[in-house]
Amino acid sequence: MNEFALIEQFFKSIPIKSKEVLFGIGDDAACLQIPPGNNLLVSTDTLVSGIHFLPEWGAYDIARRSVMVNISDMAAMGATPRWLTLALTLDKFDSHWLTEFTRGLTDSLNQYNLDLIGGDTTHGPLSISLTILGLAPDGLAIRRSGASPGDVILVSGQLGAAALALKLLNNQEVSLEDKRELMDKLLYPTPRTDLISILRQYASAAIDISDGLSADLNHICDASKVGACLIEKQIPVHPLLNKYSNAQSIDLALSGGDDYELCFTVPAGQVNALYNDLSKENLVCYPIGFIEETLGLRIKKLDNQLEHLVPKGYSHF
Amino acid sequence: MNEFALIEQFFKSIPIKSKEVLFGIGDDAACLQIPPGNNLLVSTDTLVSGIHFLPEWGAYDIARRSVMVNISDMAAMGATPRWLTLALTLDKFDSHWLTEFTRGLTDSLNQYNLDLIGGDTTHGPLSISLTILGLAPDGLAIRRSGASPGDVILVSGQLGAAALALKLLNNQEVSLEDKRELMDKLLYPTPRTDLISILRQYASAAIDISDGLSADLNHICDASKVGACLIEKQIPVHPLLNKYSNAQSIDLALSGGDDYELCFTVPAGQVNALYNDLSKENLVCYPIGFIEETLGLRIKKLDNQLEHLVPKGYSHF
Repeated sequence: MNEFALIEQFFKSIPIKSKEVLFGIGDDAACLQIPPGNNLLVSTDTLVSGIHFLPEWGAYDIARRSVMVNISDMAAMGATPRWLTLALTLDKFDSHWLTEFTRGLTDSLNQYNLDLIGGDTTHGPLSISLTILGLAPDGLAIRRSGASPGDVILVSGQLGAAALALKLLNNQEVSLEDKRELMDKLLYPTPRTDLISILRQYASAAIDISDGLSADLNHICDASKVGACLIEKQIPVHPLLNKYSNAQSIDLALSGGDDYELCFTVPAGQVNALYNDLSKENLVCYPIGFIEETLGLRIKKLDNQLEHLVPKGYSHF
Repeated sequence: MNEFALIEQFFKSIPIKSKEVLFGIGDDAACLQIPPGNNLLVSTDTLVSGIHFLPEWGAYDIARRSVMVNISDMAAMGATPRWLTLALTLDKFDSHWLTEFTRGLTDSLNQYNLDLIGGDTTHGPLSISLTILGLAPDGLAIRRSGASPGDVILVSGQLGAAALALKLLNNQEVSLEDKRELMDKLLYPTPRTDLISILRQYASAAIDISDGLSADLNHICDASKVGACLIEKQIPVHPLLNKYSNAQSIDLALSGGDDYELCFTVPAGQVNALYNDLSKENLVCYPIGFIEETLGLRIKKLDNQLEHLVPKGYSHF
């Protein structure tokens, strides 16, 4: 099977749902009509076999995870994810693998109302590079650079479970039920599209904390030219961290990547209104500290001592 | 060096030139303001080390080639290339390599007035996946599906030199001067952005023939539900093919990839006006045959015999 037959069989048959796509796969480029009043948001993420996923994972899960991590970037910008291009590098032609991959891709596209509009299929070491396009109302995209001293820092969910999953992958002492819960966190991150409209309304800055809370919060601080102080007892450490990794649980929650939750800042005066709107939609976010003028990260430990916090996260090189 | 420092040092410093970029590298996504009256064209191409380029090639050349092949997709659509995202997977952190890569990238961006707006840097087997965004006036993007019986088929340049370069890579009998000319064709394809406005005006269908003329013309025929007849004596075979590869020169010209010229079709009644406009701009395109109602590809050989032409081109699997 050549590249064209492969694209034809597996990808071209995925139906296009959105009217803004004038045409998708099958030309040298896809063609979109961007609706007036919107900005276009563009983000790219690559997942390499053996680094971002294990080759033995099911192709369905690999496809799903690839789409979810890209959607998470849009959510962090307050943008509605809309369209994807897929650059798929395959080490071999495996019809079963591709069928499963396409099924995972299609389910993810449908779940988040996305269209696959194009891509490229090449031969080489297995990797998946997705470019996601999304829309935000003119001027409402949320950046990393908008945090100000006094803003409250929030995270959108419990932290550390995906990092713990990686740590305990081959540990026999973990119950099957817990292992399943952890692996679900790692394999099926849930991008926080449910927060998009709330972020647009309240967030002064936001970031996807896929590289770990401290590293990504540090990006907000760098971009906003501010510092931050976290309060250890308010960090929402995932309960399984305390069960299996007690001594290190706060470290894993602060530096473990792959959670795909969001960290964002909200002016102190708007936090009560934020909580009201969150609870109306049955959503919970956790206030974990404050933006400060003094550069750098600090953490108020359980004993109320203030410590310097070194931003740590995933590093490739 | 971690991923962020690497992006900061090498890519974030490349200045953004276009006013439509509200912000580029440094957030979870770039943000664009698409000017009204335009469609957005989106295309992705991946280049894998050992497949699309050799690891021993200079990083400058690899970057340049990666950008050029993506620009070629925009030219084929009649779209003006504008913005790029770069997903770079690196097997190691090599500061010299990255400096050269960034230099090649920057020169290419400047030459074609493009902006690098985002990307992702990951660790893994060397590959480069670019997504290019371009603009075409509303409804003027050229597709593969518009060819009609009677249309003249044209190509934008001489064919086969890049394929010959690959074939003669290690051949000692080729003069240094000829080898340099051939390697230039392979390493530095020149995307035909000079044809964009002419294509918008005249082309009923167009395609980038990077996979080989017969394979790519066959895509036009499939999409347009037509056939084609080529005339062998009119195929612009690159002169070095006749010098070094006489017996196979027409085959290389018909099926050799990597030339990054364009193949397009023009209604017969507009061909004279096309030639006039081409000559005004000192451009040459070559008429090589006709679109026909009968499906499939045929070629009128030098002896005037009509032969069935099997579409052949690069196949990954």
